[in-house]
Amino acid sequence: MTRGERVAILLQRLMDRPGWLWSLAELGTDLGVAKSTLSEDLAAVRRAFAAQGRGVLQSVPGPVGGVRYLPLLSAERLRAAVEQLAEVLSPSDRILPGGFIFMSDVLFSPYWSALIGQCFASAFLPQAPDVVVTVETKGIPIALMTARALGVPMVLLRRDVRVTEGSSVSINYLSASSGTIHTMSVPRRALRTGMRALVVDDFMKAGGTAAGMLRLLQEVGVQAAAVGVVVATALPAHKRVQEYRSLLTLGQVREDAPRVPLYPARWISGEPDSKGV
Amino acid sequence: MTRGERVAILLQRLMDRPGWLWSLAELGTDLGVAKSTLSEDLAAVRRAFAAQGRGVLQSVPGPVGGVRYLPLLSAERLRAAVEQLAEVLSPSDRILPGGFIFMSDVLFSPYWSALIGQCFASAFLPQAPDVVVTVETKGIPIALMTARALGVPMVLLRRDVRVTEGSSVSINYLSASSGTIHTMSVPRRALRTGMRALVVDDFMKAGGTAAGMLRLLQEVGVQAAAVGVVVATALPAHKRVQEYRSLLTLGQVREDAPRVPLYPARWISGEPDSKGV
Repeated sequence: MTRGERVAILLQRLMDRPGWLWSLAELGTDLGVAKSTLSEDLAAVRRAFAAQGRGVLQSVPGPVGGVRYLPLLSAERLRAAVEQLAEVLSPSDRILPGGFIFMSDVLFSPYWSALIGQCFASAFLPQAPDVVVTVETKGIPIALMTARALGVPMVLLRRDVRVTEGSSVSINYLSASSGTIHTMSVPRRALRTGMRALVVDDFMKAGGTAAGMLRLLQEVGVQAAAVGVVVATALPAHKRVQEYRSLLTLGQVREDAPRVPLYPARWISGEPDSKGV
Repeated sequence: MTRGERVAILLQRLMDRPGWLWSLAELGTDLGVAKSTLSEDLAAVRRAFAAQGRGVLQSVPGPVGGVRYLPLLSAERLRAAVEQLAEVLSPSDRILPGGFIFMSDVLFSPYWSALIGQCFASAFLPQAPDVVVTVETKGIPIALMTARALGVPMVLLRRDVRVTEGSSVSINYLSASSGTIHTMSVPRRALRTGMRALVVDDFMKAGGTAAGMLRLLQEVGVQAAAVGVVVATALPAHKRVQEYRSLLTLGQVREDAPRVPLYPARWISGEPDSKGV
């Protein structure tokens, strides 16, 4: 096999399973090469990723070590991705009666959801989450892609209790926007006490849903590593969760506006935001 | 740049966006190489994929042509994937009261949902779907990953009508298993008349939900290219949809059984199934 062929096989294996730890012995055997050749192949991959500002090859030393691929974005790539996202969500025909924004096509797009997942993974990797959690329905694709980019499982909180989930823990919470009571549940076997959850959702207004998720996680002994949302409204400035990061901030929507008032959140460009993060 | 570095950048670009058509001129400029060198790089990638039985590089000739990556599986890889899936879903502690099977952890796993997506994409590519459709909730990750593997959009049918989706079309349908009436809706702007939809879902018993999806698609002028489900029950043998393919067949579940009676569907191993497909 040529180096080109080996690198192609290597990349396919690494990228098909982000976060998975491959032992060097295993990869060497699969590719039929000595450790020194494999090291050179991996070095080529590492140089390519560094030049692109996209993708990281982590080395874990020691006898149970190896390499893993994480599709992380450089700060510059992250900013560019969020600007693209603002662009695609900005046309005025996305404004719905009542000042809602039509976002489903983007949230459910394999391309955009994967890019959002890479943004969240890049932003929240330092918090070392070992599971990504969301509540049905529109947060599911971005949660799945974030989990994929971090190489951790995803757990879905349901808005009802299902027999097909087995024994569940549930809470009732107040939706701050509608003022109504909702239920949220999680299968007992889905989460283990002591896990660190990254909570993600598509949209945050007053933060009632995110606060509900945090309460349910607390109920089952799971720590909140961080909260990330795609779009947060500028108002109310005070949300029901103390710390969160959004990719985009949504200003006051007027139904006759020429564009949706959607801007990259301040932390994206390196400025401290109102929460000081 | 060395060939190893170029192939790494090439693979990352192709695999980050399955189904996307890259022009050779664009790739050549990005990599800073002449067309002949790019051709050699692509040939190395093609040989590697062929040797692995995983991944296809499609060439589209002509002035608007180029190459696209599809993460398709060979027949052998597909069979192995479905056997692995049967294995992970078979432990008896997945059997819930009422004979239900706990599958959420697998359906929401980034790894398994991506593998299932690759299986569906490999099975249904010949039907040339241009959109993947499912109904909330548990089908979402597999639908998203199938759409990703085919390089087409995904559209979600909702079980209610949401103001955040804009103007919607909805139908009522009968759930064959529960005998109750349900609603299913789709935003008007999500689908265009004449599209060919691949309908996917996690589970099929009598086929009422799938039949509902097909009716709603018909209502908005969308053709059903095919129906794919992860698990279909052996009984009732007669479903409410005439043609479908499942990856796995579920036999009669006894709560005290030592394993879940789950087997690769007959078409997986090349045998004609009861529908003659």
